[in-house]
Amino acid sequence: MSGGTIYGLGLGPGDPELMSVKAHRLLRETRHVAFFRKAGRKGQARQIVEGLLREDVIEVPMEYPVTTEIPLTDPRYNQTLAAFYAECVDKLRALVEAGIDVVVLCEGDPFFYGSFMHLHARLVADVTVEVVPAITGMSGAWTATGQPVTWGDDVMCVLMGTLDEDTLTDHMTRADALVVMKIGRNFDKVCRALKSADRFADAWLVEYAQMPNQTVRKLAEAEGAVTPYFSIIIVHGQGRRP
Amino acid sequence: MSGGTIYGLGLGPGDPELMSVKAHRLLRETRHVAFFRKAGRKGQARQIVEGLLREDVIEVPMEYPVTTEIPLTDPRYNQTLAAFYAECVDKLRALVEAGIDVVVLCEGDPFFYGSFMHLHARLVADVTVEVVPAITGMSGAWTATGQPVTWGDDVMCVLMGTLDEDTLTDHMTRADALVVMKIGRNFDKVCRALKSADRFADAWLVEYAQMPNQTVRKLAEAEGAVTPYFSIIIVHGQGRRP
Repeated sequence: MSGGTIYGLGLGPGDPELMSVKAHRLLRETRHVAFFRKAGRKGQARQIVEGLLREDVIEVPMEYPVTTEIPLTDPRYNQTLAAFYAECVDKLRALVEAGIDVVVLCEGDPFFYGSFMHLHARLVADVTVEVVPAITGMSGAWTATGQPVTWGDDVMCVLMGTLDEDTLTDHMTRADALVVMKIGRNFDKVCRALKSADRFADAWLVEYAQMPNQTVRKLAEAEGAVTPYFSIIIVHGQGRRP
Repeated sequence: MSGGTIYGLGLGPGDPELMSVKAHRLLRETRHVAFFRKAGRKGQARQIVEGLLREDVIEVPMEYPVTTEIPLTDPRYNQTLAAFYAECVDKLRALVEAGIDVVVLCEGDPFFYGSFMHLHARLVADVTVEVVPAITGMSGAWTATGQPVTWGDDVMCVLMGTLDEDTLTDHMTRADALVVMKIGRNFDKVCRALKSADRFADAWLVEYAQMPNQTVRKLAEAEGAVTPYFSIIIVHGQGRRP
């Protein structure tokens, strides 16, 4: 391995003061910063670091192709994304081969359901990659509820709303504490599964955790309301406590 | 509510550079810092903040009673701990009633299997408590393995080694990604459960994640070796990826 380093830099849940001291230092120092964004948007990760970067920073936006019309199960979905990630990797590889370090911004924690992982998998064999962990979005969410999420020997289960309803119900029934992410269009299905598992009444919905527009309410009060893709559902464990 | 504020301050997995900018700021500013420790020890949390505190800081150590001889199921275990937490709360309450802010140091994230939760539950009704989330120990551990822990719609399950073997095996079989904590004396039981669930060969053991003495190895290579209480087992999910 030679050349520059790619930093997979976790930014945490959204509040700039909740990023790590290390992330903060690397952001202030870096000359090159790369980040994902939707076409025509500024990008959520880029937004979080506003005001922290060098004046002469060189920005490397990586714009997602539009996949909303392709079902997840259609092979074209994966093909489109794979081509996109290959293109991103070519861009980053050209920089590190020229001896340049690049900070890649990651919302939440890079190795926990993150997009950076798709770059990491394609780079790690022959490029120096350093991952900086961060506060997860779910940690930001359970902190926002004002109650501990797990006690004693509670079992905690993290579920994606994209799973089928039976799988959701099954895990919701067996675990003590629950975190549900990727809710968006799966909101009604997730609510049905929570009801089947008899966990609905104890569920909380946190939107924009640790951001200025954060909202926290019982899920029962949110039914029928629109929920953004990055909302998180929390059911607290009730385990052993002295 | 009047008087001072209690801050439940998450320190993250152990590397001082991985604490949040907010935690760092509060630590530099606070006049009173409280922390748990075992009798006769400096305390792990106190160790992490060495060199960061004000010169005139007032330290409030909270020394755990010795409970190693009492089985978890014996009512005296809970009684001993409950009396200890009540005593800690009296000490903290006296300070906040005098208008003093106190930072309570928490390893990892305060609301995720933390000891601070036992103080929080006893204080929150009539004292202002602010919790600062942090990078979890498990996040430090999976980052140390150099591989993402969850992809696509992987189900992640967090398990305590204190659970019985059948419960462990059941969850280990059903989930995609696994995190096992509180291993220590439960090491052999956890290994048996991972074997029954056919997950043993893919398991990693991380000791002292994100600390200078960090070790990372396949669990199979660690069998027979002594493991500290704060080691973490990780089994990575292998979910959908383009």
